[in-house]
Amino acid sequence: MINVSIAGGTGYTAGELLRILLRHPEVNIESVVSASSAGTPVAEMHRDLLGETNLVFSDAFRQPDVIFLCLGHGLSRAFLKENDIPASCKIIDLGNDFRNDPVFNGRNFVFGLCEQNRDRIRTANNVANPGCFATSIMLALLPLACRKLLTDEIHVHAITGSTGAGKKPAETTHFSYRDNNISVYKPFAHQHLEEIALTLAGAGNSALPQINFVPIRGDFTRGIFASVYTKRSETISEQAVTDLYEAYYRSSPFVFVSKQPVNLKEVVNTNKGLLHIEFHNGYIHITSIIDNLVKGASGQAVQNMNLMFGLDETAGLKLKGSVF
Amino acid sequence: MINVSIAGGTGYTAGELLRILLRHPEVNIESVVSASSAGTPVAEMHRDLLGETNLVFSDAFRQPDVIFLCLGHGLSRAFLKENDIPASCKIIDLGNDFRNDPVFNGRNFVFGLCEQNRDRIRTANNVANPGCFATSIMLALLPLACRKLLTDEIHVHAITGSTGAGKKPAETTHFSYRDNNISVYKPFAHQHLEEIALTLAGAGNSALPQINFVPIRGDFTRGIFASVYTKRSETISEQAVTDLYEAYYRSSPFVFVSKQPVNLKEVVNTNKGLLHIEFHNGYIHITSIIDNLVKGASGQAVQNMNLMFGLDETAGLKLKGSVF
Amino acid sequence: MINVSIAGGTGYTAGELLRILLRHPEVNIESVVSASSAGTPVAEMHRDLLGETNLVFSDAFRQPDVIFLCLGHGLSRAFLKENDIPASCKIIDLGNDFRNDPVFNGRNFVFGLCEQNRDRIRTANNVANPGCFATSIMLALLPLACRKLLTDEIHVHAITGSTGAGKKPAETTHFSYRDNNISVYKPFAHQHLEEIALTLAGAGNSALPQINFVPIRGDFTRGIFASVYTKRSETISEQAVTDLYEAYYRSSPFVFVSKQPVNLKEVVNTNKGLLHIEFHNGYIHITSIIDNLVKGASGQAVQNMNLMFGLDETAGLKLKGSVF
Amino acid sequence: MINVSIAGGTGYTAGELLRILLRHPEVNIESVVSASSAGTPVAEMHRDLLGETNLVFSDAFRQPDVIFLCLGHGLSRAFLKENDIPASCKIIDLGNDFRNDPVFNGRNFVFGLCEQNRDRIRTANNVANPGCFATSIMLALLPLACRKLLTDEIHVHAITGSTGAGKKPAETTHFSYRDNNISVYKPFAHQHLEEIALTLAGAGNSALPQINFVPIRGDFTRGIFASVYTKRSETISEQAVTDLYEAYYRSSPFVFVSKQPVNLKEVVNTNKGLLHIEFHNGYIHITSIIDNLVKGASGQAVQNMNLMFGLDETAGLKLKGSVF
Repeated sequence: MINVSIAGGTGYTAGELLRILLRHPEVNIESVVSASSAGTPVAEMHRDLLGETNLVFSDAFRQPDVIFLCLGHGLSRAFLKENDIPASCKIIDLGNDFRNDPVFNGRNFVFGLCEQNRDRIRTANNVANPGCFATSIMLALLPLACRKLLTDEIHVHAITGSTGAGKKPAETTHFSYRDNNISVYKPFAHQHLEEIALTLAGAGNSALPQINFVPIRGDFTRGIFASVYTKRSETISEQAVTDLYEAYYRSSPFVFVSKQPVNLKEVVNTNKGLLHIEFHNGYIHITSIIDNLVKGASGQAVQNMNLMFGLDETAGLKLKGSVF
Repeated sequence: MINVSIAGGTGYTAGELLRILLRHPEVNIESVVSASSAGTPVAEMHRDLLGETNLVFSDAFRQPDVIFLCLGHGLSRAFLKENDIPASCKIIDLGNDFRNDPVFNGRNFVFGLCEQNRDRIRTANNVANPGCFATSIMLALLPLACRKLLTDEIHVHAITGSTGAGKKPAETTHFSYRDNNISVYKPFAHQHLEEIALTLAGAGNSALPQINFVPIRGDFTRGIFASVYTKRSETISEQAVTDLYEAYYRSSPFVFVSKQPVNLKEVVNTNKGLLHIEFHNGYIHITSIIDNLVKGASGQAVQNMNLMFGLDETAGLKLKGSVF
Repeated sequence: MINVSIAGGTGYTAGELLRILLRHPEVNIESVVSASSAGTPVAEMHRDLLGETNLVFSDAFRQPDVIFLCLGHGLSRAFLKENDIPASCKIIDLGNDFRNDPVFNGRNFVFGLCEQNRDRIRTANNVANPGCFATSIMLALLPLACRKLLTDEIHVHAITGSTGAGKKPAETTHFSYRDNNISVYKPFAHQHLEEIALTLAGAGNSALPQINFVPIRGDFTRGIFASVYTKRSETISEQAVTDLYEAYYRSSPFVFVSKQPVNLKEVVNTNKGLLHIEFHNGYIHITSIIDNLVKGASGQAVQNMNLMFGLDETAGLKLKGSVF
Repeated sequence: MINVSIAGGTGYTAGELLRILLRHPEVNIESVVSASSAGTPVAEMHRDLLGETNLVFSDAFRQPDVIFLCLGHGLSRAFLKENDIPASCKIIDLGNDFRNDPVFNGRNFVFGLCEQNRDRIRTANNVANPGCFATSIMLALLPLACRKLLTDEIHVHAITGSTGAGKKPAETTHFSYRDNNISVYKPFAHQHLEEIALTLAGAGNSALPQINFVPIRGDFTRGIFASVYTKRSETISEQAVTDLYEAYYRSSPFVFVSKQPVNLKEVVNTNKGLLHIEFHNGYIHITSIIDNLVKGASGQAVQNMNLMFGLDETAGLKLKGSVF
């Protein structure tokens, strides 16, 4: 059994991690650390866990084999400075601290996009879990990047559920505002652009064209729906593009190319990524869907843990979708 | 033209009042008072008003004919203490300060349920606008109360939209929580029970039976759907009950008895109240629907103003429903 | 491994059954029967199953150990007449054919409310799976019924998600109608009243009082939220009622009494039932929540299968909730 | 008073037209024609109209000054063949029959985009009302087209509410499918592309570049949110672009340029169009929002009627937004 600690236990990604890990056959959750909630039963905060766990928030971890950092963006560095993590303890960071800047305090963080870095992750001690928007967009583009086929501007609109904005209430997550509403935020300037660019360039497409990305707030809770298109290079036929994607994801247990158009709820509450490819106006058009809290955060983090500890990549992650 | 001032101009009921009054043929909005937002254009706060008004929040009213108090529950008394309102200026309070305790500082507040108190409101200088839940439930029961036919316990479940909870974000108005969710709050203990009881007793049913009221948070933004039942007295036939309701509301321009079952969106964005009556198990079962922000708050407040100033009761209130 | 066949494989309950059974450690799905879709891959109809199964709809079952009937209400009898099911094959009917009329063709159907009939189900060859509304309401009342404490009228309002209305589109399941809407249907006359009454009387409360049940269409997809109250008998204290519920459900792995008020999404996508009990106005007020497709249909059916085959009652049913 | 007839009175656009025209100060609705529903009270079909009208569906019009055709796409030609419309009767077609093919039976249909064709509409006897997606996209691009500034490919993602799909239930308008869901349809191939191209070219941008348009089904009922970008020509500065838009729409009573980012509900239930403009990566990025049933259909049709009959363009159209 792997002894697991979760640091920053009260937020959405920690809750989702708990839901997954409590059902994981190879995991023992040794501690859920929260300075503000120490002493409170975990199921009082994550109330859906009533009857599923007697865990209590603690103010410190003990001797975990791995720590998941669910601290919020920019807080992982401070945590590692303040806490003495034994070198033998692996770290999986769900924040954005080490995605683009992977070396810290003698630790080197591998970018945890399993479909790209599966082998490196297997031997990693530290993993920077990718962002949710980034995951959906990278899955849509990786096969092309590996073949240096991204030669023209890339156009992306992606719609996210409200859980991507976190637990703290705000004007744009107020139900009266968000219900039946749509809005754009940070157009052409979302912070995930950097990790997307680094990843695609790192995959082989070193001369990466500009990515035009318009993020959209959707009036649903879970999931990201990305619509991505870029010019098809004349050096590759439509059929060859489709074959490329199928070959690329053949060994990935969670990513599939759908012949039919996809709708977001096909992946909600699962660790799956679904892609659908069409060709129009000289463009390759890819729709890419994930659950932002699972494949876009806590599920992918567990997938990384499985790889890092030599387990079956799908252990604990064959989740029943909610579909409706 | 009636010169109107709105005190407490940034919340939901003030916004809705503005939307209505800006289209009212007999109204000039002289000031929208907000200490915290003085100097800010109203359309920057209530952004749907872009292109509809150049009003700017002010820190004081001038010489209004009527002030609407949209200050939040319990704050109207303090406002009247701190501000010297000329005796000639009428007051319509949208808070709950004077509903059950109508005398203050020489002013006497008439309870502003137009369908019950139309004549008294016509001559009133001060009106306490009813609560939203209360309005939907009182409309369902008033005809029976007037005939002293409420003789057995009254059972009420009523579901409210999120705008009833106001603008300030909270856990239970977070989109991630509320979307696709249902919960109960303050069962058997909602603060509107008092004004309901006072009103029904005052309408003639002095020996009022117990009212069991379970309020429910719905996952929609606008409206209240009340399901109400009480034993039918043997002294009145089913047909006579139906006739009683139709007669009671015949002179009311906004309340109708529907022969068909009703659904909430039939009244959303209007000042209407719809009732549907059935008879089962010896009970009279009434479904009653209103828009909580219109008939349950700002629309009813304007209806009161129309009556107080001798205008057509429907002036400015023939609103197009949104239906979908 | 248990060989399973599903008859009527294209609807919502069949899809949900597939999602659960494909992850069940002791099950082999031998056939998914659909006359209309024979030859079509199952994942083309239930598209979320892409990558999870290669099953194809067939026009006949082979030699299953158990058949789940997902045929729609009233169609199970015809199916059993037209198909020769070997006596050795167990049957679990998700329709309403045998709930109130359990003997047919030499088969006797046990009512499959696991929390009440656990021992009888363990030896049953045929089970009639309870209705979704009925499950939520019976769970709220069973402990009282077992002690003959239901002595006064019972008042129920219960709100259901749209999946309860099935896959076939209708006016009241049209998104443009249902979104942000609420309506009542079949007030005081829902067909589940009979199985509720039979069950509570059978549990010991033979002199059952009238149940007043108002079913409500909610604008969400999954779940039932039931609000139930009845007078507390003076023979039992408030504390004793709470103790009674906790004792009654202590041995049930899926039903829990929550000290905190519950909200519907705490159980969505799980097989759990949560109850919360308060005391007001002399009443016991119980809120009861389930997922209508899981505990209210396919999950409970699998729970029944587990009991019938001597498996751990929770096998394949420790589902991660979606919560958001 | 203008005598109005509506042909095809039972669908969504006819209902919305009725809601608007019943409040229009200069209109008398002489007939609502529906072959299938003749004899039925209009308020039984459009149930929100209870208490607002005693109109009954008829099987023929009498002597209207104008007929609105709400027959469904492709059915207007057949209607005009089968019905002898007097030459003196004006026609406003809400279908797509005459948008791209404007001459029929001696009648010439002016394209009814008021902001572009205001003067031509004033003297027109026949108007082809624009499509909903088309309206939102054309409003975003017209000022550039008039100055021949559309020189590079145009990229559009636009999300529509479910009412755009009409009243007839379908898989993709089933609440269980659509709630909390997102999907793409007809990417790069939507039928509105033709009227958009004709309009922009006709406005002066005769050498029109390719338009890449991805339509998206949103999980809301009313509204279209369009995100549009195209390269900014070096011949025009950012400030000049903004000035161009403000100048273009200065005389339009319903279209406004917002300095702040917009969200869809700012226009829902109104006839307004809001635009917000930003500059990134060398692109002009425009978000454009309308209510698909009002400005995108029935509201714009009434705006056309107002122009055709010499009324104030805003008569009957100063609608209170629902906002929430």
